[in-house]
Amino acid sequence: MAYHPLDENTVIQYVVGRPLMAKIFSNFETLSVSEVGDGNLNLVFIVRNEAHPEESVILKQALPFLRVAGDSWPLTRERMRYETQALLKHNELAPGLAPEVYDFDEEMSLVIMENLQEHEIMRKGLVARKYYPHFADHISTFLVNSLFFTSDLYLTGPEKKLLEATFVNEQLRKLQEDFVYTNPYMESEENNWNPLVDDAVQAVRRDPELKIAIAEMKQAYMTHAEALIHADLHTGSIMLNAEDTRVIDPEFSFFGPMAYDIGAVLQNLILNYLSHYGHTPDPAERASYQAYLLEMVRDIWHQFAQKFDETWKANNRGELVPEKYWDFPGGQEAFAEYRRRYLHRLLQEVAGHGGVKFLRRTMGIVSVWDLTSIEDAEKRAVAERLAIQIGRRWVMERKAVSSIDDLIGMVEEECAGVAI
Amino acid sequence: MAYHPLDENTVIQYVVGRPLMAKIFSNFETLSVSEVGDGNLNLVFIVRNEAHPEESVILKQALPFLRVAGDSWPLTRERMRYETQALLKHNELAPGLAPEVYDFDEEMSLVIMENLQEHEIMRKGLVARKYYPHFADHISTFLVNSLFFTSDLYLTGPEKKLLEATFVNEQLRKLQEDFVYTNPYMESEENNWNPLVDDAVQAVRRDPELKIAIAEMKQAYMTHAEALIHADLHTGSIMLNAEDTRVIDPEFSFFGPMAYDIGAVLQNLILNYLSHYGHTPDPAERASYQAYLLEMVRDIWHQFAQKFDETWKANNRGELVPEKYWDFPGGQEAFAEYRRRYLHRLLQEVAGHGGVKFLRRTMGIVSVWDLTSIEDAEKRAVAERLAIQIGRRWVMERKAVSSIDDLIGMVEEECAGVAI
Repeated sequence: MAYHPLDENTVIQYVVGRPLMAKIFSNFETLSVSEVGDGNLNLVFIVRNEAHPEESVILKQALPFLRVAGDSWPLTRERMRYETQALLKHNELAPGLAPEVYDFDEEMSLVIMENLQEHEIMRKGLVARKYYPHFADHISTFLVNSLFFTSDLYLTGPEKKLLEATFVNEQLRKLQEDFVYTNPYMESEENNWNPLVDDAVQAVRRDPELKIAIAEMKQAYMTHAEALIHADLHTGSIMLNAEDTRVIDPEFSFFGPMAYDIGAVLQNLILNYLSHYGHTPDPAERASYQAYLLEMVRDIWHQFAQKFDETWKANNRGELVPEKYWDFPGGQEAFAEYRRRYLHRLLQEVAGHGGVKFLRRTMGIVSVWDLTSIEDAEKRAVAERLAIQIGRRWVMERKAVSSIDDLIGMVEEECAGVAI
Repeated sequence: MAYHPLDENTVIQYVVGRPLMAKIFSNFETLSVSEVGDGNLNLVFIVRNEAHPEESVILKQALPFLRVAGDSWPLTRERMRYETQALLKHNELAPGLAPEVYDFDEEMSLVIMENLQEHEIMRKGLVARKYYPHFADHISTFLVNSLFFTSDLYLTGPEKKLLEATFVNEQLRKLQEDFVYTNPYMESEENNWNPLVDDAVQAVRRDPELKIAIAEMKQAYMTHAEALIHADLHTGSIMLNAEDTRVIDPEFSFFGPMAYDIGAVLQNLILNYLSHYGHTPDPAERASYQAYLLEMVRDIWHQFAQKFDETWKANNRGELVPEKYWDFPGGQEAFAEYRRRYLHRLLQEVAGHGGVKFLRRTMGIVSVWDLTSIEDAEKRAVAERLAIQIGRRWVMERKAVSSIDDLIGMVEEECAGVAI
């Protein structure tokens, strides 16, 4: 079928025509449809069997332009292929931590997948101060499995290059290169920031050392093809409940630096921490939830590091450092030291990439709902100013970071004097 | 035409059947052919018009296996496509510094190109203590043009990713990953070293810090997709005379770290320097040529750095750091400082990758003719022991390197006590 965007009137007919849908729906007569897309790039429909409400799917179709700006940002629909490939890979490597894929139509640039009816977007839950006792475990497993098993630590050289060649994704990579690492720090039409933090924003744009450091992180982002990264792993790309966690929307996926994904998760949790200066007026209630978030950050990194190291020891199949390479007296200790330094380097890069993302969320085109939902501009400015200051420190001090406590310490130090 | 290896009896018929060859040869009746391949991977023929000896071509055809070991290392013939693509790109970016491509037959995995009748392989000339007054100029231009213009400093994000996607080259990359960064430093059937330096070789294989450092350089080699690199730019891949320089054999090309190519050139010149302890018995003659080689190393780096910086300033078209990014008070100074640090990082990586290549040439499967042509094993051992010691220092001290003089200083220090 030649590409055409579906609408609420044509979706059901399309679904009925897909053979695989007979496995999902016990009948087609009582299907209903609703458009739920709030993204910028895609149409998103829920198709539900009204007679059996547990039977439902998400149908996601790429539009040939960036929706937020009309036709002004043309984008290839090929991104839906990248999203589908990444979803399938995540299902393979981290089963139960991504939505299941039911069907894919390359010509129509659409994917049909599991509708996560019992889950909510993490950002919303965090603003509502919800607790997620399994999240650190789940997300650290997702990160370890999706990153380790697509890296040179697990794949052979040729396997990795051939997989990488299926994730060129040059269009969406450019969006992140521009919107995360470039435009926020210079004059750009799309930039958007709170006038109350204008001094801090302008100071970032004029700081020679910080600009050089951001350019260094951008260079790493553009060239370090370590593993298949999600590349947009903020808390809006996570749907969860107390028991279950799913990572969605991997359309930006490509082979990039592992630390970008890890940094995205940790930095988003801290942005949420800061947002509670606006959302949670009661100091005790706020302090308690903020402490929970920082503990979650610490826990995610520790679990990530431990699982990554254990997975590496148990699955050292890749060609970066084969077993035999360490076959000398003291070789196992050297291998352990190499792994320790590998994780230490990752943590420093988490600081660098995560730090840049603090800055872009407060001065670039796309903010986060945690902050934008603070209606009082003065309260929002408190959180934004802290985000800029923490981001600056994570970037500038990244090479001195030796533990996750260093990163958390910078958050605590910057927030120590806040009176609100 | 379905793939079949040509031989001396079938080459002329093949050439006559190629329409483009009428531009090269004024008649086909007096063509002669000779096989001149000494490589491991390919058939190489010279086809010449005996009536007009200036009319000649090289015909290079890929074999479906690594020739040195019979059928035991099967390799895809696709590498001839990579070689041709890289040759065309080099002709485009560095005209006059690569052989001209006349014809290409993908199905037959062969390329027909300029026969460099007036040039010799650089390794041979250096062993014969020849002088190449334009080499530093030529090779620094080749390096700057081939690296800068295929990097994120010149190409847009999408342009670079799409070009990179045409250089997957997973098979030949694996060869370098194994034979440069892995096998020489562990037990491996193919390793080959002079028993007289066995102590030094074994010490490398058992040195925990050095093994970790080599693994770090391998990680960078495998993942840092900075630019289209030649990836085999030793002095056997350079043909030249006093006036003219050509870089040949780019079949290993892929998007990797720029410093790998630069390091290959510099390290091969120093290996040749060391070889003169075997080749040049007269101390004054030797010292004079060695001084010439070290000056050439210094000159290449300085010219590279200067041309790279000037090229960057004049062609800052890429998206890594657009002009506008530096548009603030002091921004031009910050941009200059960023460029300075970029080149400083490159130099440190030259030390790391170049250092590894010193080691692999003395203890791995493939040595270099500069060394193997020293018949006296004791004299060869002098050069090899120095190569190992210099390689170890370049790798281990790379992060402290601040100028090319630091790298040259290590060579001078290690060679200071040599009595031969």
